[in-house]
Amino acid sequence: MIPVIVVHGGAGHISEERVELSRQGVREAVLHGYRILQRGGTALDAVEEAVVQMENNPVFNAGRGSVLNELGDIEMDAIIMDGKTLNSGAVSAVRRIANPIKLSRLVMEKTNHVCLTGHGASRFAKAMGIPEVPEEFLKTDYSRMRWKKNLPPGSNPVQCQMGKMGTVGAVAIDAEGNVASATSTGGRLNKMVGRVGDTACVGCGAYADNYVGAASPTGCGEEIMKVTLCRLILFHMEQGKSPKEASDIALAYMFERVQGFGGVVVLDKTGDWAARFNSKQMSWAAAKDDQLYNGLYKDELLSMPISKT
Amino acid sequence: MIPVIVVHGGAGHISEERVELSRQGVREAVLHGYRILQRGGTALDAVEEAVVQMENNPVFNAGRGSVLNELGDIEMDAIIMDGKTLNSGAVSAVRRIANPIKLSRLVMEKTNHVCLTGHGASRFAKAMGIPEVPEEFLKTDYSRMRWKKNLPPGSNPVQCQMGKMGTVGAVAIDAEGNVASATSTGGRLNKMVGRVGDTACVGCGAYADNYVGAASPTGCGEEIMKVTLCRLILFHMEQGKSPKEASDIALAYMFERVQGFGGVVVLDKTGDWAARFNSKQMSWAAAKDDQLYNGLYKDELLSMPISKT
Repeated sequence: MIPVIVVHGGAGHISEERVELSRQGVREAVLHGYRILQRGGTALDAVEEAVVQMENNPVFNAGRGSVLNELGDIEMDAIIMDGKTLNSGAVSAVRRIANPIKLSRLVMEKTNHVCLTGHGASRFAKAMGIPEVPEEFLKTDYSRMRWKKNLPPGSNPVQCQMGKMGTVGAVAIDAEGNVASATSTGGRLNKMVGRVGDTACVGCGAYADNYVGAASPTGCGEEIMKVTLCRLILFHMEQGKSPKEASDIALAYMFERVQGFGGVVVLDKTGDWAARFNSKQMSWAAAKDDQLYNGLYKDELLSMPISKT
Repeated sequence: MIPVIVVHGGAGHISEERVELSRQGVREAVLHGYRILQRGGTALDAVEEAVVQMENNPVFNAGRGSVLNELGDIEMDAIIMDGKTLNSGAVSAVRRIANPIKLSRLVMEKTNHVCLTGHGASRFAKAMGIPEVPEEFLKTDYSRMRWKKNLPPGSNPVQCQMGKMGTVGAVAIDAEGNVASATSTGGRLNKMVGRVGDTACVGCGAYADNYVGAASPTGCGEEIMKVTLCRLILFHMEQGKSPKEASDIALAYMFERVQGFGGVVVLDKTGDWAARFNSKQMSWAAAKDDQLYNGLYKDELLSMPISKT
């Protein structure tokens, strides 16, 4: 199997001044993951590393750079899924850690549970030796500005966020044919305390099955949940659709049925892949066969040999 | 449409002395829900009321009677889903309230979110005027006994719980043809603090779609999540399978793929229904066309006119 990895840095409307930063961020993330695959590493390690890169990058709404909730705090959701075993690990509404995706991986591998939330997730992080980071480390001037802008009564954080739904995610297939999916987010701008979105929910915020493929979404979390977007895409692939066809059918359904916007990165068990969205933009990158692919606007597909990056 | 409601009081191995209490509990719950449907009430109201009855009944692992976590506390998950809009509401790891299913309904109807967790759910409950109940009110001698029994190193709460997975749930279709699903649970015996199971996860712990039907599960939560059990059953129904066939296919798949045990109550948009399980027992009851149906052992089907209950 030729290894493949595809990542996204969020769907929506990316403002002019952030377009280049976003492009650069997904390219760096996908290359980090791809190097792991090239060295014979696992799909799980590759998607985790790609997501860690984007959590560490303040341009994206995950880890450092996450949006703030109604009280001005950061609560993050993340999930990782292993297509070989169907095991997954997730954390929801977790605070004061740098890399929720790493904690999700530990939930999957070190507990017999699938999801830990809030103070239970923090308690587990402490037991695993993961250092707490100050809340201020995770905040950026940009996230503080957007929070304040949406505080006054009459402001519309949902509409505002349509601009910048910067959830991050990755799917990969490794040389052994194992697929994996990972997603991480700060959630919705000015969300209620304790709000959990699609990301922490298996089948919505991620799905991976070696017999079919893997998917990671971004967009309106509540609408993604209504249609269990990732599982829906895999069902269409089980019925013979390509990653592109399955993604387009599922995104069109999500729009028609519940007026949802978003995007996905998807691959199947043969390594065929797609990055699709029905929002204005989605920042994405893919690496396969020593080629780097990348796009942000509708129907945009840039490519170059990885050796030249 | 002839209204129908089906409820379960948990799958597993129900001990002799609790068999009659469990039978009685599901029959009472289903009749409460059915009366709402007979008066022209909605499927949502019916499933909520049936689940409230079982949350209030200390025989079941939901609301009062919930299992305790590793620290001896009660943290509950619940979900409700509306097949008309695909809206759902859920709470996870919520403490010190009597009826998590009522809070889930409020999340669905009074917020623009799908799920609230932990302290955020408590904060919302307070804002909605839901009284806090003492932790001791939710605990029973039985739940304390089982918690203590599984504290010593070397004990096996997972194995122990295989006996008593008393999650509760309901599905219904009303006179307008709207379907709904609701599920509520104390989760897994001696679980880690903050553990969230299938119940709070759309597609796993419930799914409802007017174009297809509705499902509510019980059993090994982590395995239910691996296969997104409820959404899987609805996919099979979309492809022409009856509720019984779809349930049996999905439960067999869950066992083969991830060695999961459990059960489901399911109905389709025509009012055809099923209560199926691959565990030793599942306590269930159904009401349709003025008949009350009820079972607990494999292939057991008792029925009587509701007028005679």
